[in-house]
Amino acid sequence: MEPITLLQPKSIVFGKDVINTLPEATEIKQSQRVLCVVATPLLKAMESVVQAIQERGITLNVLEYNYVGEPTFKQVNSLLEVSEAFRPDCIIGVGGGSVLDCAKLLAALTHNPQTLTDVSGIGLLNGRNIALICVPTTSGTGSEVSPNAILLNEETAAKVGIISPFLVPDACYLDPVLTVSLPPKLTAETGIDALSHCIEAFTNKFAHPMIDIYALKGIKLISENLKQACVKGSDIEARAAVLLGAMYGGLCLGPVNTAAVHALSYGLGGKFHVPHGLANAVLMPEVLRFNMPANPERHAEVARALGVTVTGDASAVALAGIARIEQLGKDCGIPQRLTDIGITKTDIPELATIAMKVTRLLKNNPRTVTEADAIGIYEKLL
Amino acid sequence: MEPITLLQPKSIVFGKDVINTLPEATEIKQSQRVLCVVATPLLKAMESVVQAIQERGITLNVLEYNYVGEPTFKQVNSLLEVSEAFRPDCIIGVGGGSVLDCAKLLAALTHNPQTLTDVSGIGLLNGRNIALICVPTTSGTGSEVSPNAILLNEETAAKVGIISPFLVPDACYLDPVLTVSLPPKLTAETGIDALSHCIEAFTNKFAHPMIDIYALKGIKLISENLKQACVKGSDIEARAAVLLGAMYGGLCLGPVNTAAVHALSYGLGGKFHVPHGLANAVLMPEVLRFNMPANPERHAEVARALGVTVTGDASAVALAGIARIEQLGKDCGIPQRLTDIGITKTDIPELATIAMKVTRLLKNNPRTVTEADAIGIYEKLL
Repeated sequence: MEPITLLQPKSIVFGKDVINTLPEATEIKQSQRVLCVVATPLLKAMESVVQAIQERGITLNVLEYNYVGEPTFKQVNSLLEVSEAFRPDCIIGVGGGSVLDCAKLLAALTHNPQTLTDVSGIGLLNGRNIALICVPTTSGTGSEVSPNAILLNEETAAKVGIISPFLVPDACYLDPVLTVSLPPKLTAETGIDALSHCIEAFTNKFAHPMIDIYALKGIKLISENLKQACVKGSDIEARAAVLLGAMYGGLCLGPVNTAAVHALSYGLGGKFHVPHGLANAVLMPEVLRFNMPANPERHAEVARALGVTVTGDASAVALAGIARIEQLGKDCGIPQRLTDIGITKTDIPELATIAMKVTRLLKNNPRTVTEADAIGIYEKLL
Repeated sequence: MEPITLLQPKSIVFGKDVINTLPEATEIKQSQRVLCVVATPLLKAMESVVQAIQERGITLNVLEYNYVGEPTFKQVNSLLEVSEAFRPDCIIGVGGGSVLDCAKLLAALTHNPQTLTDVSGIGLLNGRNIALICVPTTSGTGSEVSPNAILLNEETAAKVGIISPFLVPDACYLDPVLTVSLPPKLTAETGIDALSHCIEAFTNKFAHPMIDIYALKGIKLISENLKQACVKGSDIEARAAVLLGAMYGGLCLGPVNTAAVHALSYGLGGKFHVPHGLANAVLMPEVLRFNMPANPERHAEVARALGVTVTGDASAVALAGIARIEQLGKDCGIPQRLTDIGITKTDIPELATIAMKVTRLLKNNPRTVTEADAIGIYEKLL
């Protein structure tokens, strides 16, 4: 086995209603001033928890987060001013991946002379002085356990990854009740995104047995429960399973990470503002079909975790798995083609150019992707 | 799924030669004074790492640990005096479970007005101010990831558990090279102990899907590699697999923990000074035979993880699994009977009395164990 470093929150609290135990978190008990960054739709759900923390004599301010899409440099800097002025010793993020990414950056950069630009890239953060708790309310990015934060550079329309061990939260609270109000469309897109984290980690060039167990468990949980979570959003068991699956997907991101699905989706998000999960969902089956010949056995294992029971050679099993992913997308109302999300043939060269620049993910792909290959994949999806 | 809290080190570094990266650990870089508690046989292997840390301008003192068996209150208090005088801001433990348990307690109690007696039990520690890194050099207790420390009360001959989230280390370094010098006998005993952590967690009354994945992976890794690690200690791949399996066993301990195997072994350790791993190894097959009817399906899953391929009803598969554990013990030179380790029929009533007091573990057992049941299990092993 290759050497590996697993980074994760010291405390992962999972289950129905665990949000009510948040005031007991060690990080909060040890704080005097807590800044709680909350996505607008969650403000109400967090009211009683906020009050319970304040009743402990802790000064807690709520900072509403109401931006759409990946946070931009300007948006994060503007929230950073609020955080600098408040001087928190603990930051809580409550929301989807963008909110959590933003909370992670606020915790790292408040009272830190480094700027967003200084830390853009891999391993550039010098440290973090503020405790950090993440509470995901979508089941997608797994940001609550990962060392990643993704921003949008509003000037170049490029996504920028900030990756550092110091961005892994100290604790995360995974409460399916907070995901119940997520509409079916977002449930589907974020869920397939989470599935793609697991699949891209398992079929990765740098796959590792210690991550494989998370990836396979995530694939199983999401594929068995995502449709139900979309169709009947109030099903707590289904919501819990998908939330947990997304967390496992997040654990895959640090040491192994994603590959060509995510690289090819960069331009869709950055340039054409297609939501991150939707972009990955549309691309995944075709990218997997491209990748499969490079390692049919691993793709067949994915298929079996997806519930495929057909026997035969690995390629056949793997293809049945890809068909199952397509069916899951259809069942959850995900568009199948780029044209369905407003992309035309003339956009493809630019998408491919952007994708080719995402070398930090392309290097993980089980099969080399040339610019021509990327164009071919996009064209098949027209 | 039931709510659960997973506690683990923020950083788990695994692989051949990773000990050489220890000087780069965030916890060490952020420290001025490091106390390194090292088991006597490891002093030499740690020399170059110690020197590399000192060359960073950090004041590092090595504290040799040369006690045998679980640390006693008196022993820990004596080392605590050394630690108090040294005023470390980071403690590193290097050794087997006893050394790590001791290092964990030193990190928690140095500069802490609480005493060992104050914190004996569950959840009584108020906090920990000193960074803590654990480096296991046996593959057994999983102490490097668990919230547990086990002491021996030298006056009552009773084992005492100190269990607290603050005892979970900040980081652990799992380097199979450091386990190579462990003699076959200790390799076998600690390895079967680790296997018992996984099996007792998986068949536990409070088993949880988030722990099951660790338990099954641990069972597989240990059962496939322990014999080779005993027979050819220099096989790094086998050593790595068993070390990792033991870590997974440790992850099982916090939220789910062990059951009757460990409860029935308490008296063997505390009263008759049988090494912890050996005591569990002798008891496990018979306890599993007793437990199996309470949940044949779970015991059959254990058997499959052990590599059993027979088909049939769950009970038959489960029994084949137990037979395989016995065979593994034999292959590794583990005694099979209590009489082989110096226990006679007259000792049994006292063993049973001690076992009955370990309610914190007995409550986890899939089948209720009465005192008569305990006596029956011991007698079968004469």
